[in-house]
Amino acid sequence: MNIIYKGKTKNLVESNGKMYCLFKDTMTGTDGVFDTGGNQVAGSKEGAGAECLKVSKFFFEKINQAGVKTHYLGADIDNNLMEIENCSVFGKGLEVITRFKAVGSFIRRYGLYTKEGQELNAYSEITLKDDNREDPLITKEGLVELNILSEDEYDEIIRENKKVAKLVKKILNEYGLELYDIKFEWGRHKDSGEVLLIDEVSGGNMRAYKDGKYIEPLELSRYLGL
Amino acid sequence: MNIIYKGKTKNLVESNGKMYCLFKDTMTGTDGVFDTGGNQVAGSKEGAGAECLKVSKFFFEKINQAGVKTHYLGADIDNNLMEIENCSVFGKGLEVITRFKAVGSFIRRYGLYTKEGQELNAYSEITLKDDNREDPLITKEGLVELNILSEDEYDEIIRENKKVAKLVKKILNEYGLELYDIKFEWGRHKDSGEVLLIDEVSGGNMRAYKDGKYIEPLELSRYLGL
Repeated sequence: MNIIYKGKTKNLVESNGKMYCLFKDTMTGTDGVFDTGGNQVAGSKEGAGAECLKVSKFFFEKINQAGVKTHYLGADIDNNLMEIENCSVFGKGLEVITRFKAVGSFIRRYGLYTKEGQELNAYSEITLKDDNREDPLITKEGLVELNILSEDEYDEIIRENKKVAKLVKKILNEYGLELYDIKFEWGRHKDSGEVLLIDEVSGGNMRAYKDGKYIEPLELSRYLGL
Repeated sequence: MNIIYKGKTKNLVESNGKMYCLFKDTMTGTDGVFDTGGNQVAGSKEGAGAECLKVSKFFFEKINQAGVKTHYLGADIDNNLMEIENCSVFGKGLEVITRFKAVGSFIRRYGLYTKEGQELNAYSEITLKDDNREDPLITKEGLVELNILSEDEYDEIIRENKKVAKLVKKILNEYGLELYDIKFEWGRHKDSGEVLLIDEVSGGNMRAYKDGKYIEPLELSRYLGL
């Protein structure tokens, strides 16, 4: 196996011409506290990688079935490996967030106009993956100006992000859970040029609640019966 | 004169059924240092109000002549008064920025993709006036979600902002000056409902340069021969 890229919670590896995400046991957070919005490695927990992979397998299979193209090809849970399509990211990586309830950075930015927990209509936004600048928000015009996305790519990614977010929301609802917000990443297939959902879809990507109580990222699989 | 609203650098006053901006000698900045991007009152300088009013008169008259509707009706420099149309702001106030060169908060946010002084194509963005949250950037979708602007209002304001920014850039060019970026405010006429350029148009709204050297806000009138 050749390590192509070392990430905070996953490595990108190549073996026999196939690409894989290797899920690690590290978790992100802020100042040592696990936190979905955090940008640092906050610590490590045995089994965290397998946990995120199990949940990702669960969601990617359902997302693929729903007709949204993803980089997911299969999962080898015992070895923490997810086989994936070979994709490149837009710019140096984007996070695309869809929000159903106002929490987290939305409140920190827009608290003058909204209050914690207010309903949002699948409001979506893009932030740049940039740890040194705390993942700044960027507008459609900004992404076009900096040659990161075309206008059409922006519209496609936002539209598909909302579609997948609503699907995950619906699935969670079936398990008695409520989705407040979720972030995804999108990439471009290196051969076909198609826009695909990439990265992972696990507890760390979303804020899910059960009867008003926040579900810790590593607890999600238990609620899904995995 | 009745004070309707006390601002950091201007008061809104009413007299005999007419509305006026009263320009004060206070200046905004950060931690006591004058700074176009600053949000606090950084100090006071005798004549600062008259200076900003003189420059605003100069630009508003040219902007009105160019056919863009503004709240400007006339100026009484001796009394620091600008007679204005009666307008309301959108939400609790917005700043609409058009940038021709990457400086200031644009670099702080997007330094991973751009460098100081890079040309920008009249890139425009809106921030919320909210001192407690450092005037956060907000997208079109965010403004619509929070019922601050409609999609059409957003498009109109961005289009007109670029138009006025380009006009100011052209005027400054005639005086050998270069405009890097500029911020405007827009409001709605309380009777006609029309969208008008409001607030002021002075050195404090813009970053202007002469032969690569930044022009302090209160120095601008001298370069314009006012």
